Amino acid sequence: MTKVAVMIAPGCEEIEALTPVDVFRRLGIETTMVGLDDRQVMGAHQIALTCDTSLAEVGEGLLGFDCVVFPGGSGGAKALRDDDRLMQLMQRRQQAGEWNAAMCAAPIAFARYGLLDGHDYTCFPGIEQTTTQVAPSGRFHEDITVVDEKGKLITSRGPATALAFAYCIADALGVDAAEVRRQMLYPYLLENNH
Amino acid sequence: MTKVAVMIAPGCEEIEALTPVDVFRRLGIETTMVGLDDRQVMGAHQIALTCDTSLAEVGEGLLGFDCVVFPGGSGGAKALRDDDRLMQLMQRRQQAGEWNAAMCAAPIAFARYGLLDGHDYTCFPGIEQTTTQVAPSGRFHEDITVVDEKGKLITSRGPATALAFAYCIADALGVDAAEVRRQMLYPYLLENNH
Repeated sequence: MTKVAVMIAPGCEEIEALTPVDVFRRLGIETTMVGLDDRQVMGAHQIALTCDTSLAEVGEGLLGFDCVVFPGGSGGAKALRDDDRLMQLMQRRQQAGEWNAAMCAAPIAFARYGLLDGHDYTCFPGIEQTTTQVAPSGRFHEDITVVDEKGKLITSRGPATALAFAYCIADALGVDAAEVRRQMLYPYLLENNH
Repeated sequence: MTKVAVMIAPGCEEIEALTPVDVFRRLGIETTMVGLDDRQVMGAHQIALTCDTSLAEVGEGLLGFDCVVFPGGSGGAKALRDDDRLMQLMQRRQQAGEWNAAMCAAPIAFARYGLLDGHDYTCFPGIEQTTTQVAPSGRFHEDITVVDEKGKLITSRGPATALAFAYCIADALGVDAAEVRRQMLYPYLLENNH
């Protein structure tokens, strides 16, 4: 069974944190919410989130997921960025050829980890001023989602792109999301809301 | 200060439950998550939600909100629909000319309450087979969001329309959401994702 972990840090953007969990569970992907410090995490908009486990509990188990997903939110992204234990696990995941994904502000964490070096990515508008300084060999793009097959990186831009991000991750993992996209009215929204 | 309550019932669709909370708090709207039975509620996709209060605690205080929002999710919508105490409070809100909003499957609750009678609304595709039976004088439309000024009703269709629903509620309450829409990349998504 496909297994994905979503990293939840204090100050995370709640839509970005929970939309992938909702989408992946609809798809039958085994999805684990991993709190950075604790199972109980307060989001950026005072929405209290309850995770399934914590990073301390998971430990090297983080290497066993098919993808590890970083939501954005400035506070959450900085907390993920500054965690050395998480950095080392994520570096080992990239070296092992496993998928990693980040959206909005969270590519600042991947920049510090060295995961963006020589790879294609996107982020929240303006955040590239930080990522290009920290990871100058990374190639920033303005697309809604960016997939770098070589670096096994999936990145996206902000709250409104959270569904696109989740579907893109499913596609990369070989899980057909077409029916769930339809059930969630994503094609309907794009066709009708101009 | 504008005050909104979001009703959270077991089996609610988590994106639909939390997207309005996130958007409203970004807009400076005082937003209260009200658990139907308890402050702790399990969503349809096993995401544990922690509310600020419960319906029993709020009681007639529900009459004091500028809008009460019902997210969808089949299980959550049925639980809201079948709660007689909530039905009576919502009927009094409509009689008092207060705004009420429901999306996805949740218009089945408004149908039972009589809130749709003679008014314009939308719901998740197919749910109108139920609502038109229960509330035959309601007028179903296929738009992403429907605002009925006379019945003070705002309705929408499914997870992918949750942002549009939240912005539409803000507009109806006279709160300018243009800058928050931009910050959340909603116009960017619609302009770029075809």
